Amino acid sequence: MNIALVGAGNLATNIGKAFVRARHSVVQVFSRTESSARDLASALGCSYTVSVEDVVDDADLYVIALKDSALGDVAGRLVQGREKCLFVHTAGSIDMDVIPALRRGVLYPMQTFSKAREVDFQAIPCFVEASQATDAALLKSLASEISSKVYELNSENRKFLHLSAVFCCNFANHCFRIGEKLLNEHGGVPFDVMLPLIDETARKLHALSPGEAQTGPAVRWDENVIGMQLGLLSDKPDLQHIYELLSKSIHDDKL
Amino acid sequence: MNIALVGAGNLATNIGKAFVRARHSVVQVFSRTESSARDLASALGCSYTVSVEDVVDDADLYVIALKDSALGDVAGRLVQGREKCLFVHTAGSIDMDVIPALRRGVLYPMQTFSKAREVDFQAIPCFVEASQATDAALLKSLASEISSKVYELNSENRKFLHLSAVFCCNFANHCFRIGEKLLNEHGGVPFDVMLPLIDETARKLHALSPGEAQTGPAVRWDENVIGMQLGLLSDKPDLQHIYELLSKSIHDDKL
Repeated sequence: MNIALVGAGNLATNIGKAFVRARHSVVQVFSRTESSARDLASALGCSYTVSVEDVVDDADLYVIALKDSALGDVAGRLVQGREKCLFVHTAGSIDMDVIPALRRGVLYPMQTFSKAREVDFQAIPCFVEASQATDAALLKSLASEISSKVYELNSENRKFLHLSAVFCCNFANHCFRIGEKLLNEHGGVPFDVMLPLIDETARKLHALSPGEAQTGPAVRWDENVIGMQLGLLSDKPDLQHIYELLSKSIHDDKL
Repeated sequence: MNIALVGAGNLATNIGKAFVRARHSVVQVFSRTESSARDLASALGCSYTVSVEDVVDDADLYVIALKDSALGDVAGRLVQGREKCLFVHTAGSIDMDVIPALRRGVLYPMQTFSKAREVDFQAIPCFVEASQATDAALLKSLASEISSKVYELNSENRKFLHLSAVFCCNFANHCFRIGEKLLNEHGGVPFDVMLPLIDETARKLHALSPGEAQTGPAVRWDENVIGMQLGLLSDKPDLQHIYELLSKSIHDDKL
């Protein structure tokens, strides 16, 4: 397929490379930031543009990988004059219908992308949806070439999937960040000491469900330790509040 | 060394096996639960007892690996008649002084132990402390035989270390649990699809700090997505509250 890539951020970079590895052609990269557009186009061996008007109008597929807030506006302008083309976005939490085209869809690769890290796209679950059955089949087939786990999921359920990912990734990572802060302030132990614990916490889930894997004072409802640890956070009311709510939620989960 | 193991739970099991692998002798296992005492004693090739009074009185080291709430009581009874012996506990959040002996200490292996999973003890950071300098040296040397990462840390700093571990392990795991629940309720996608994301979230930290690694709507402060996701949780006020607090904390961290 001839694919136009709209966006040049972390996700666009990773999915563009995956398309090329699967022997599809990325024919053009669009980004308002010229340096990003140029860098990605050069990595993918194609042309680039910084103006929506100059985006090619004969691509088989337009993949819009922009931040959520820019999606509606750019999609609206892209569709004009390209009414018969197929457009997909890559956002977990945005409705397919944000694209005002007859042939619209979603290809959401669920992963946390950072520019500096290349990820193994084959291992990333991809969720597809389309307004027309033939396009759904086409997207499923395309996604299967870049990922070994492809699911069809409608917009409503995808929103919950993305919310689940926010908890599993962003919020879990923030727990790591809080742990790092507490460590930095007391005893000068480097954060590296937490990595075996964090690795095992993730690895466990390949054998146990998160409920089965839970340990610690909250699941034991050890009120001495919980009270003592709340005391350690007395100068940090925000963290104290987070500690309290999560402990209670762990406890309630067992009732 | 001749070691008496007081306790037969997950931690006692794992540390007992590590001692034996390092060619120390576990001479006896104590547990009030006879089946646990017997099973562990049989795995370690030693005798067992279910009564504190029958614990041997000539061990070089007594390792008390009990749940926090039982620690003070059992330690008090153990020390009677064994006033010259060295006692350590293995709890992250409990003061060394809970043991009323002249020669007291702590050997805290920081990991999440589940009975069904054998862990690589060498990779587990161990934190030691003792009331006497010669015992601190002895514990450091013993810990170095079972773990490649040994630190000396006083009780006050160890409490913060343990609090940090609660965030990095228990609270992160609860975020996974919440994610699992949301997924189960919407669209029937199996929780397995989250594992690549969770693995990458943990793996990233070997290259980036948790602050650098953060992605998602909260760090971008994308109020549209945040508002929409809070709406998805409208029938779950507890989770809505957790979502709100963690998002705000992620945002504040960047200010």
